Amino acid sequence: MKNFTLHNPTKIIFGKGQIATLSNELSKDKKILLTYGLGSIKKNGVYDQIIKALNGYTIFEFGGIEPNPKLEQLVDAIPIIKKHNIDFLLAAGGGSVIDGTKFIAAAAYFEGDPWEIMTNDPSPIKSALPIGCVLTLPAAGSEMNCGMVISKKAYPDKLGSGHDLLYPKFSILDPTVTYDLPPKQIANGIVDTFVHVIEQYLTYPADAAIQDRFAEGILLTLIDIAPKVFADLHNYNFRANLMWSATCALNDLIGVGVPNDWATHRLGHEITARFGLDHAESLAIVLPSLLNVKREQKRGKLLQYSERVWNIKYGTDDEKIDKAIFHTKDFFQTIGVKTRFRDYGINADAVPDLLKQLEIHGLTSLGEHGDIDLKQSEQIYLGCL
Amino acid sequence: MKNFTLHNPTKIIFGKGQIATLSNELSKDKKILLTYGLGSIKKNGVYDQIIKALNGYTIFEFGGIEPNPKLEQLVDAIPIIKKHNIDFLLAAGGGSVIDGTKFIAAAAYFEGDPWEIMTNDPSPIKSALPIGCVLTLPAAGSEMNCGMVISKKAYPDKLGSGHDLLYPKFSILDPTVTYDLPPKQIANGIVDTFVHVIEQYLTYPADAAIQDRFAEGILLTLIDIAPKVFADLHNYNFRANLMWSATCALNDLIGVGVPNDWATHRLGHEITARFGLDHAESLAIVLPSLLNVKREQKRGKLLQYSERVWNIKYGTDDEKIDKAIFHTKDFFQTIGVKTRFRDYGINADAVPDLLKQLEIHGLTSLGEHGDIDLKQSEQIYLGCL
Repeated sequence: MKNFTLHNPTKIIFGKGQIATLSNELSKDKKILLTYGLGSIKKNGVYDQIIKALNGYTIFEFGGIEPNPKLEQLVDAIPIIKKHNIDFLLAAGGGSVIDGTKFIAAAAYFEGDPWEIMTNDPSPIKSALPIGCVLTLPAAGSEMNCGMVISKKAYPDKLGSGHDLLYPKFSILDPTVTYDLPPKQIANGIVDTFVHVIEQYLTYPADAAIQDRFAEGILLTLIDIAPKVFADLHNYNFRANLMWSATCALNDLIGVGVPNDWATHRLGHEITARFGLDHAESLAIVLPSLLNVKREQKRGKLLQYSERVWNIKYGTDDEKIDKAIFHTKDFFQTIGVKTRFRDYGINADAVPDLLKQLEIHGLTSLGEHGDIDLKQSEQIYLGCL
Repeated sequence: MKNFTLHNPTKIIFGKGQIATLSNELSKDKKILLTYGLGSIKKNGVYDQIIKALNGYTIFEFGGIEPNPKLEQLVDAIPIIKKHNIDFLLAAGGGSVIDGTKFIAAAAYFEGDPWEIMTNDPSPIKSALPIGCVLTLPAAGSEMNCGMVISKKAYPDKLGSGHDLLYPKFSILDPTVTYDLPPKQIANGIVDTFVHVIEQYLTYPADAAIQDRFAEGILLTLIDIAPKVFADLHNYNFRANLMWSATCALNDLIGVGVPNDWATHRLGHEITARFGLDHAESLAIVLPSLLNVKREQKRGKLLQYSERVWNIKYGTDDEKIDKAIFHTKDFFQTIGVKTRFRDYGINADAVPDLLKQLEIHGLTSLGEHGDIDLKQSEQIYLGCL
């Protein structure tokens, strides 16, 4: 096991009816900016629940945050924050809203070009407004970590960054608010969660037994629950397990002390930036090809994955790996997320452009070994066709 | 899944050589009271590492904290704290030292009889000194939770309590400092960790898939690692996995959203209070008998445990449960922890006394259903003979 630091100070408030407890987490003197997306919270009752819970509080609003939240839009929140001396950001939504709100929290009093928050490493931020979350979509895991992924309208940029100051102070997770999500979003959330786990788990053996077992536990849970969720959309326990899976997939726990990959995300971000595919759609395309291309370097873990997650016991090692990749792909397809470029009308002509973007973003040594150069990325993209 | 709140602010600093980073966690103006046990930290180098890491700091000492730390001894730290205006407690040791230090942190400025901290529910404490830990013995999990178990010399009292204020600010976990632990303490730590998991897992099915998988993951890890640790006492990865298992077994994660039992601990504490058995020794005696007596109420989870943890696939349900209990007992015995009263020369005459203590402590409705009354406790104790 590698040395690690684990410090996740986010308070999780989980369960039915928990939005009503919001006022326990916020003192009345706070000036709150409520941030949200394209309006689903006004249809599913979350907005009303928040306003009711915060009756008597000073609340301003910043709505309209888009999926793959964009710098150009997010910075519009800054003058509102300054004008009204906002001192708390309350994000109500899924990963895009929460990530966007983290960016606003970091950018509000950042001196310099806010895009540096995403491009500079280490993160240049020195302070951030505190944020809280009311989660409406289990997928990104942003409600219990300090990371964010932000895009730029002006150019196909989609970059990830993070800072300890960006852990939410609290996140409220009420599974009932997810009942009326479109099945497509549920499926995307499952794929996103699955791939988050894989990025931290499916690297090379690192003698981290607990992290491995926890990762496998989340994968087994997703595989078990996914068909049930779609068969019974208002089942509380299925939704609760799905919601908690998504959070635990990316709350640091399974990623500490082990090598991390994240190449699937990096390669996927370029697809989203270029072609506008949903985040999960891009991941479902890249992952199977990446596992195939990297099968030698990932052999030990691929075999463990095939046995412990897919219960594959027979065949040669390569057959087991083939089966594990097949099952992974099949799992995504079964819940309705496609796994090929061709499913979206993307052909080989796209690959040079995607490689160029990777180069511009300096993403030329990806993966747990840093050995996914542009040549290997090309192989992986070509395997997605 | 039940509603829950999860908020664990402890920072974990894990790995080889991490004690040297202590000064990153403490500002130089802190007046520190270093607390420890019976002197093992002076033999295994931990004391020297701490003193070296905190060169230039103002450090006072309070050593000699005994296993099953006692009120009468712990309160002796209070005048030292007041005299020197101590503002940080640094516990170097295992669960007893950390629990004792939590008690000191709570008692230092507590108004009233400090024993009320243990007996009153909810906890009467309003403040506590901040504490940090350097863990030397993986077992109790106290390094990443807010609980403590304290005894009284004057009478066979051993009680548990806790408060959010008692989460350590940080805990340093360096597996190499555990290399020279006596095998008996390693074995006790494994049993303690195993039973911590069981108390939160083996109740009744509550549709908490992630908590179940995580709990099973820790149990599988312990079963896998235990023989290896004893066969290769200085193997870093075995020790690291053992240490991290112990912490994850009791850092809230597997216990939220599910019913909790803790009857084995309650019944075990009375045995320790009365006969001085090690904590783990008492648990290894009580658990198999408790599982047997409560097999109807625990049937669903016992079957899940038998299949997922012990890989038992054949037989009637009752045969599977019998096998699971047998394997549990056998696991404890294999690593050298005995599972019968008779192994310690305790006979049936002891039972009335133990029941009387339970009654005095108001422990007459134990377990996840609160249905373990004195009659059932008697059955369980008699099953331990």
